[in-house]
Amino acid sequence: MIDLPAPKPDVLARRGEILAGLHALVPGDGVIGEPARLRPYETDGLSAYRQPPLAVVLPRTTEQVAAVLAFCHRNGVRVVPRGAGTSLSGGALPLEDSVVLGLMRMNRILEVDYANRLAVVEAGVTNLGITNHVAADGFFYAPDPSSQLACMIGGNVNMNSGGAHCLKYGVTANNLLGLKAVTIEGEIIEIGGRHLDAAGYDWLGLLTGSEGQLVVVTEVTVRILHSPEGQRAMLAAFRSNEVAGEAVDAIIASGIIPVALEFMDRPAIHACEAFAHAGYPLDAEAMLIIEVEGSTEEQDMLLGRLKAICERFDPISLKVAETAEQSLAIWKGRKGAFGAVGRISPDYLCMDGTIPTGQLPFVLRRIGEMSASYGLQVANIFHAGDGNLHPLIMFDANDSKSFHDAEQFGADILTLCVEVGGCLTGEHGVGVEKRDLMPVQFTPFELDQMRALKAAFDPGWLLNPAKVFPLEGNPALRPAA
Amino acid sequence: MIDLPAPKPDVLARRGEILAGLHALVPGDGVIGEPARLRPYETDGLSAYRQPPLAVVLPRTTEQVAAVLAFCHRNGVRVVPRGAGTSLSGGALPLEDSVVLGLMRMNRILEVDYANRLAVVEAGVTNLGITNHVAADGFFYAPDPSSQLACMIGGNVNMNSGGAHCLKYGVTANNLLGLKAVTIEGEIIEIGGRHLDAAGYDWLGLLTGSEGQLVVVTEVTVRILHSPEGQRAMLAAFRSNEVAGEAVDAIIASGIIPVALEFMDRPAIHACEAFAHAGYPLDAEAMLIIEVEGSTEEQDMLLGRLKAICERFDPISLKVAETAEQSLAIWKGRKGAFGAVGRISPDYLCMDGTIPTGQLPFVLRRIGEMSASYGLQVANIFHAGDGNLHPLIMFDANDSKSFHDAEQFGADILTLCVEVGGCLTGEHGVGVEKRDLMPVQFTPFELDQMRALKAAFDPGWLLNPAKVFPLEGNPALRPAA
Repeated sequence: MIDLPAPKPDVLARRGEILAGLHALVPGDGVIGEPARLRPYETDGLSAYRQPPLAVVLPRTTEQVAAVLAFCHRNGVRVVPRGAGTSLSGGALPLEDSVVLGLMRMNRILEVDYANRLAVVEAGVTNLGITNHVAADGFFYAPDPSSQLACMIGGNVNMNSGGAHCLKYGVTANNLLGLKAVTIEGEIIEIGGRHLDAAGYDWLGLLTGSEGQLVVVTEVTVRILHSPEGQRAMLAAFRSNEVAGEAVDAIIASGIIPVALEFMDRPAIHACEAFAHAGYPLDAEAMLIIEVEGSTEEQDMLLGRLKAICERFDPISLKVAETAEQSLAIWKGRKGAFGAVGRISPDYLCMDGTIPTGQLPFVLRRIGEMSASYGLQVANIFHAGDGNLHPLIMFDANDSKSFHDAEQFGADILTLCVEVGGCLTGEHGVGVEKRDLMPVQFTPFELDQMRALKAAFDPGWLLNPAKVFPLEGNPALRPAA
Repeated sequence: MIDLPAPKPDVLARRGEILAGLHALVPGDGVIGEPARLRPYETDGLSAYRQPPLAVVLPRTTEQVAAVLAFCHRNGVRVVPRGAGTSLSGGALPLEDSVVLGLMRMNRILEVDYANRLAVVEAGVTNLGITNHVAADGFFYAPDPSSQLACMIGGNVNMNSGGAHCLKYGVTANNLLGLKAVTIEGEIIEIGGRHLDAAGYDWLGLLTGSEGQLVVVTEVTVRILHSPEGQRAMLAAFRSNEVAGEAVDAIIASGIIPVALEFMDRPAIHACEAFAHAGYPLDAEAMLIIEVEGSTEEQDMLLGRLKAICERFDPISLKVAETAEQSLAIWKGRKGAFGAVGRISPDYLCMDGTIPTGQLPFVLRRIGEMSASYGLQVANIFHAGDGNLHPLIMFDANDSKSFHDAEQFGADILTLCVEVGGCLTGEHGVGVEKRDLMPVQFTPFELDQMRALKAAFDPGWLLNPAKVFPLEGNPALRPAA
């Protein structure tokens, strides 16, 4: 389990007063205090950890957010911002003495400007909601986390979310133009805007991926792109992870940037096929799903070149979709992967690390060895083009040794990612899940320097504390006894 | 002229001792103190302002940089980092009591890794030097500032430099994977690496574009890309800026992202044609240079579609290059634009602002009105696809009223950029040139917040002070009396 900092006794003691103060700022049904109604907020997508908050507040405007933050700041109350609560790293895990600041009621699309290819939306608009709003006019918002139906753009900004199609279009940071946000003092700031670049320091860059620790994002200006005429996928199955990894390298080296380039290993193929009956090759050790887009002629040309590249690696099977329906069939198993693994294992941890793409075969072999040594199954599914791994470690939550082993196995995988020149996280963030691994990646000086950045925004460590940094060594956050 | 902070009398008094201390750290010819040899370092690409430094130090290793910074930190000596000195905003302007830390001797290419598409280079490697090193193997480094023959990657990182081809490939920030850098205390930090994304705060994002004020960058890991099979340009001339602006909008809205989309107005066309005899249409009010790349078939397809789009806007002339030579001829005038303007005016200021692309016609009309009212000619050349303006304001440096008017005209243009929802700078940075305009873009609170970020790295304001922020309101930097 996870250590959380000791709650502030004075905040717990003044709970009634704090609830009343919040009610005055966000009237009506904007404040939740009843324990039963707090339960939905006690965890997020990383459901392994649970902690009900002191209260939940659901503002409807940036001004209300500012008032709530100024109030919490004056009263020394910790604040945990929350979008849809889909974080896979515990980024929205509450503390006992914290107010959860939910942005889900700020769900208006404020402006769409096709001439400048941008949309201004509130933080609680869902990722897919942006695309749905502009799709009829031939536009879309590119980053596509698997949770895109539910997850909200404010959370995407805070976690710098990615997705299968980020190989071509980049992650959230590459698709942002501006933010409106509120500091812990309740000051409203506007960053970036409708233009390239920014004067002064790039705090749009800094705030993107800052996991709700520096400011609360209330409005986001995103780049929208013209929709491609169409897209089509192909499936290539290989005899070994090594050979599939070489095929990935050859594709990237060819200069073709597919929209998506997904890798599944044997356990992942079997789990997905049993669940989705997508026609995946059960005799393969590894499988790639490769998607291209453009006009029909461009698709034909690119798929032809990709097929020729894959053929050099003696594939077990190659299937190029001829139609949109065949393309969906290829994707069907991959899209249901998490559900598929959930069916064969009572519980699983979804890890998220990044490696240089050239290290793929080595890292997969090491994960296989670890799997044998821990006696825990693992299915590997990942965005191969940009080296973003998602090993799914299967365990039994009713068996505390199994859970502990799975946590340790996950930590070993992420440490391996760092050792081969990669990174602890690809798109899920550090949250509480990976905060104790940060010293694997960073020196004490580097961690201190990052803490100084945190303190430059929030000297009292009130905003989403207990995330990103280990509790030890942080004088502002003593672990609970 | 520009105000600089009062020099520290104790530093000036200890000049001999400081030179001796630096000599001990960077022996041989690594320290320059003689006034005549300091002259080349007294200004940069913004030659309007000049100030010789206390000394210049030219380290060869990251460890020497660390030793120099620790020494300067202990002795309270200000430090101005410098690459090739091509900054157009005075980013490398020395102070009287400062040490210029020149990175130009750190010019080794440390590693090229084609499997992972990256190169690790020292800060003093030139931008074009990277591409030249990998070109024979079919790769290139994408951002291409006009000064790419001279400018160094460390400076590119600090200014988040762009270039004509950044419409497709993004600016420096989009092509970086990692940095090695040194803090003012002399601590060596490593950021990012060989992988997508980063754990913890995105200080790769924060440091990119921080204008030498947060750390000194000594090594850079850049993304290298597979070279396209070829590229070809077309030229389209129109009856008015408005119509050319509409053509730009139509191209962007079509979903085609050309590699480059350059806009020149009538004065720019005439200046370039007189200089380069590139065959530009002298009867046009505005001209676009549009470049695409890919296989010959892709080039044909894209140029065909672009030609059809331009034809909807009743062009005066359309010329599609059939060969690489014809393509070079189209670019010839544009590439020599600065020299061309220099031939018709004794002096000019090159401004750099960004606007939402939809505001192009309005902004050009207002610049024309300002030009008439100031009585100063202006030529407009810019990266139209991403809204990055480069008005060249012509003046006579021997006439102080003319210089003052040109400065004021430039400030008016940049204020206009902010008013229409744009930004003070596109790719040249704030430096000293635009620091006093920062309050046009940012609130006092926002500027204070950015100063807090500066102080989180450099509480004594020793690293490249007097840049980015107005001197007023900065207690660490009193203007000289």
